[in-house]
Amino acid sequence: MIVLDAIEISTLPKQQRTNLINGLSGFKSALLIGTTNVAGQQNLAIFSNVVHIGANPPLMGIIHRPVSVEKHTYENIKSTGCFTVNHVPRKLYKNAHQTSARYDRATSEFEACGFTPEIKGSLPAPYVTESFIQVGLTLEEEIKITSNDTLLLVGSIKEIYLAPGIIDEEGFIELAKANTILVQGLETYYTANFVDRLPYAKP
Amino acid sequence: MIVLDAIEISTLPKQQRTNLINGLSGFKSALLIGTTNVAGQQNLAIFSNVVHIGANPPLMGIIHRPVSVEKHTYENIKSTGCFTVNHVPRKLYKNAHQTSARYDRATSEFEACGFTPEIKGSLPAPYVTESFIQVGLTLEEEIKITSNDTLLLVGSIKEIYLAPGIIDEEGFIELAKANTILVQGLETYYTANFVDRLPYAKP
Repeated sequence: MIVLDAIEISTLPKQQRTNLINGLSGFKSALLIGTTNVAGQQNLAIFSNVVHIGANPPLMGIIHRPVSVEKHTYENIKSTGCFTVNHVPRKLYKNAHQTSARYDRATSEFEACGFTPEIKGSLPAPYVTESFIQVGLTLEEEIKITSNDTLLLVGSIKEIYLAPGIIDEEGFIELAKANTILVQGLETYYTANFVDRLPYAKP
Repeated sequence: MIVLDAIEISTLPKQQRTNLINGLSGFKSALLIGTTNVAGQQNLAIFSNVVHIGANPPLMGIIHRPVSVEKHTYENIKSTGCFTVNHVPRKLYKNAHQTSARYDRATSEFEACGFTPEIKGSLPAPYVTESFIQVGLTLEEEIKITSNDTLLLVGSIKEIYLAPGIIDEEGFIELAKANTILVQGLETYYTANFVDRLPYAKP
């Protein structure tokens, strides 16, 4: 096998190290986070580091990079207290990727990248109309990861919108049917194929 | 679309809510965490909530459920200060799933579920020989998520073992070639197909 120790990892060229370390945690779902500022200026950004925190109460987390530079998504979540998480359907993965470009604050990525914002329910944050799975959350907790100054933003799930036909009577969402796209690192996209659903394991 | 508000979510039957909320955060990679206690008793457990925290320094995080009940993985990480993260190749997803059964402390899931432990490098935690991507970490930070008493365990990446032929000269790991299996929730498995690799996005 190829072996890399701590010293070899630390001396890799930056881009190589970024690719390598990003790959180690595996595939992620590509999700679009919709926010607004208090003046109504909307923002949309692709995130791959969204985690399940718990089902009861229903919570979801986002790992957010250090906020030393201007971060519209973070500032909007802090000022309005809410955000939406929207799955990216396969046919729109290029549009979703484009939201990672550094647009200025006056530009809405919805408009620049070909998505339709939708305000509905009880939150001011915009949903992505084109998404088959849309989740509205309020900010519940902000945790600093001191090892590298990243943040874990924990959201409380307040509203769920699902396209018809992708959820069964057990509450199971058929993500492959929803065509949710996957991402590795910041730029490599995949789709998923169903393999199996296994029963609860017993010794 | 199907709409669920906070009250409807909270009144769903437990299993339906668990399935639903687990699906909202999308696909995850299925990863095996290898640990040992100080007496050398080894443990192996499947986790799906592993996140990329940063590349420099190289960090990876695990969302860990509340530790009110006996949790061998957590106790071993705390007592030895280290763990391994191993990708699950497709042909062994049933074995990997079986590690989620509640074996007693005296049982090694390596033996019970058909994996081969391997001690190598500088850490006492066992790697999974059958895995194409193996990562050794030390515990860097333990963070309590107060919203539901789950934990974020942040590990510092100390050693990486990769099968030959799955990493390119840019450091990019070909996860589809490594056959890394994906999981949704606790029991539904998928494989991934490469779609595209896009350039850095500019406005």
